[in-house]
Amino acid sequence: MAGHVLAVKDVFDTSDQPTSYGSPIYRDHRPAADAAVVAMLRSAGAVCLGKAVTAELACYHPGPTTNPHRATHTPGGSSMGSAAAVAAGMATIALGTQTGGSVIRPASFCGVYGFKPTFGTVTVAGMKPVAPSLDTVGWFATSAADVADVLGVVTGRAAPSVNVRPPTIALARTAQWEQADDDSRGAVMEAARRATAAGARVIDVQLPLLVDGLADRHPKLMAYEAARSLAWEYETHRDELSPDLQEMLSTGWAVPVDEIDAIRADAVAARAHAAEAFGDADVILTLGVAGEAPATLATTGDPRFARLWTLLGTPAVSVPGLSGSTGMPVGVQLVGRVGDDVRLLEVAGWLGARLTSSAGSGVTAERS
Amino acid sequence: MAGHVLAVKDVFDTSDQPTSYGSPIYRDHRPAADAAVVAMLRSAGAVCLGKAVTAELACYHPGPTTNPHRATHTPGGSSMGSAAAVAAGMATIALGTQTGGSVIRPASFCGVYGFKPTFGTVTVAGMKPVAPSLDTVGWFATSAADVADVLGVVTGRAAPSVNVRPPTIALARTAQWEQADDDSRGAVMEAARRATAAGARVIDVQLPLLVDGLADRHPKLMAYEAARSLAWEYETHRDELSPDLQEMLSTGWAVPVDEIDAIRADAVAARAHAAEAFGDADVILTLGVAGEAPATLATTGDPRFARLWTLLGTPAVSVPGLSGSTGMPVGVQLVGRVGDDVRLLEVAGWLGARLTSSAGSGVTAERS
Repeated sequence: MAGHVLAVKDVFDTSDQPTSYGSPIYRDHRPAADAAVVAMLRSAGAVCLGKAVTAELACYHPGPTTNPHRATHTPGGSSMGSAAAVAAGMATIALGTQTGGSVIRPASFCGVYGFKPTFGTVTVAGMKPVAPSLDTVGWFATSAADVADVLGVVTGRAAPSVNVRPPTIALARTAQWEQADDDSRGAVMEAARRATAAGARVIDVQLPLLVDGLADRHPKLMAYEAARSLAWEYETHRDELSPDLQEMLSTGWAVPVDEIDAIRADAVAARAHAAEAFGDADVILTLGVAGEAPATLATTGDPRFARLWTLLGTPAVSVPGLSGSTGMPVGVQLVGRVGDDVRLLEVAGWLGARLTSSAGSGVTAERS
Repeated sequence: MAGHVLAVKDVFDTSDQPTSYGSPIYRDHRPAADAAVVAMLRSAGAVCLGKAVTAELACYHPGPTTNPHRATHTPGGSSMGSAAAVAAGMATIALGTQTGGSVIRPASFCGVYGFKPTFGTVTVAGMKPVAPSLDTVGWFATSAADVADVLGVVTGRAAPSVNVRPPTIALARTAQWEQADDDSRGAVMEAARRATAAGARVIDVQLPLLVDGLADRHPKLMAYEAARSLAWEYETHRDELSPDLQEMLSTGWAVPVDEIDAIRADAVAARAHAAEAFGDADVILTLGVAGEAPATLATTGDPRFARLWTLLGTPAVSVPGLSGSTGMPVGVQLVGRVGDDVRLLEVAGWLGARLTSSAGSGVTAERS
């Protein structure tokens, strides 16, 4: 990590810098310790530039960060400052978190790599929880190799191979396919086209019904867990929470636990089904976002395309290089098997090199 | 919760009381917020008595707490103060945590109910992590009904029925059976005898090999995750960690991640096998401890009998009422299916009533 400049989403504790979790409740808060991932990266030589803006308590209410590509557009959320810091060249790596789509979406909107590892494999110590069965530490960088370097530091995993054989890619158009716009669908199809042209085998797959239907059930589980995880804030500082967050937590308190049990049980079953859906493919290629970053700073965009994979606990990465009809970045999402994070990053690096080349048509390569 | 007096293991944050995690590193630490479970219980009417001693950073190095039944004996650990506070009548309920056997063991040694719910179903927000894939919030009380009341507050689960039909109990003598002494094995067999006499159907089961062998692999996973979760303490305050903990963390840093992947994959597979092992039984009855509390304050006793169930994520409860050859309490462990926490507590209450009756023979009922 020597030479790396690190930005830290402000939901990770830092002993030497304020940590406000994107909430006025914590405006003067200074934790006692560094979050474990911060400590590991610093110990490995990274220099901590500072804290990066997060949406309120890692949920939806945006902070002031703008998109480095166009200041009228959201950078996505909730890891908005982290993705923007890397996209703007302020930091070489940046820590984020994903509970719904908080890494994949801002990575796509800002045109950088955004990675969430297999659930449960990177310690959450010192991270402010939202929904512990979904909360995943993730990070941003401008190359898959840098992403993998961070993974090595925090888990001990080996570096991916740089000489990668053309992969087998399962193209999953999922039940949400029609909910994305032409820019996002076009980016996925363009990525498939370029991968094929570069020697990859791309096969269409249909996700099992149980898997495909899970995405829509994620918000209920997140709200149930967030209500309980933010009980102190809700009980003692409710008027300092945004109306949006108050409503989500109120919704979460009203969800019967039987429904939560059913979602959790189906998620366990779906994990086994999803493993089968890979067939002999190395990764699944699918939508990461609805399209380009929306032209607003009032919301952080739609997380729905990342939710399924967060709930399944699979590793996922947003691969940059393509752009949409107005020239803003549009990432594509690659998903790996549980535990197969290194292979996923190998393929992400391989595909990313094809997407940043100038051979684009239909969907254009990103201008930078 | 109105009328309940709550003791809080000092690994949960409290905004109005010091929180030292059992470590001199945090001797002057005062968190900004209450842990979520503390906030929920306070909001429901419990009065927080104060913080309860924890072993160092919820691991093994003991604090000063003694066993209320005999001050020369350990109360167990790491949730030592919590179990002792309830056993001594200082608190009616007490929060603890379990990563190996930190609830089941002190509950057994102190002669109270100790419960850990299904992994991932009670929020860990505001709890100091040790090994996030194992860390489970648990608690202590003098009745199964009080245990269930806490579960209701923090998850929304319904109260167990008070009119319980005699259960079907799977008696699992496990690969560890010979590692326990006569007191502990005798307590399990006495519990089975009394359950049978009261109308329960008790059937012998043998755990599948993959399940039974997991217990011995738990320490490696815990050390790997603890090393990373306590990276800040290890990197910046190593000389304030006990030599025991330094050694565990050093061991954890040396474990290859491939071994961790294999343990995690086997644990996932074992969860499915374990569900089958229940057959049509409501609960598994098994060892919780090696025997009575050891006559020492230098260690907290042997956690090995709880590790398997922590790794599997099943709910488990230590049921009091019996005692060993010197008159100290010996609990028995009941294990439920994942998600079946309420039924487990129904059976725990039913069995507990049989163990505290005076019908004992062989292993005597606890004197109090």
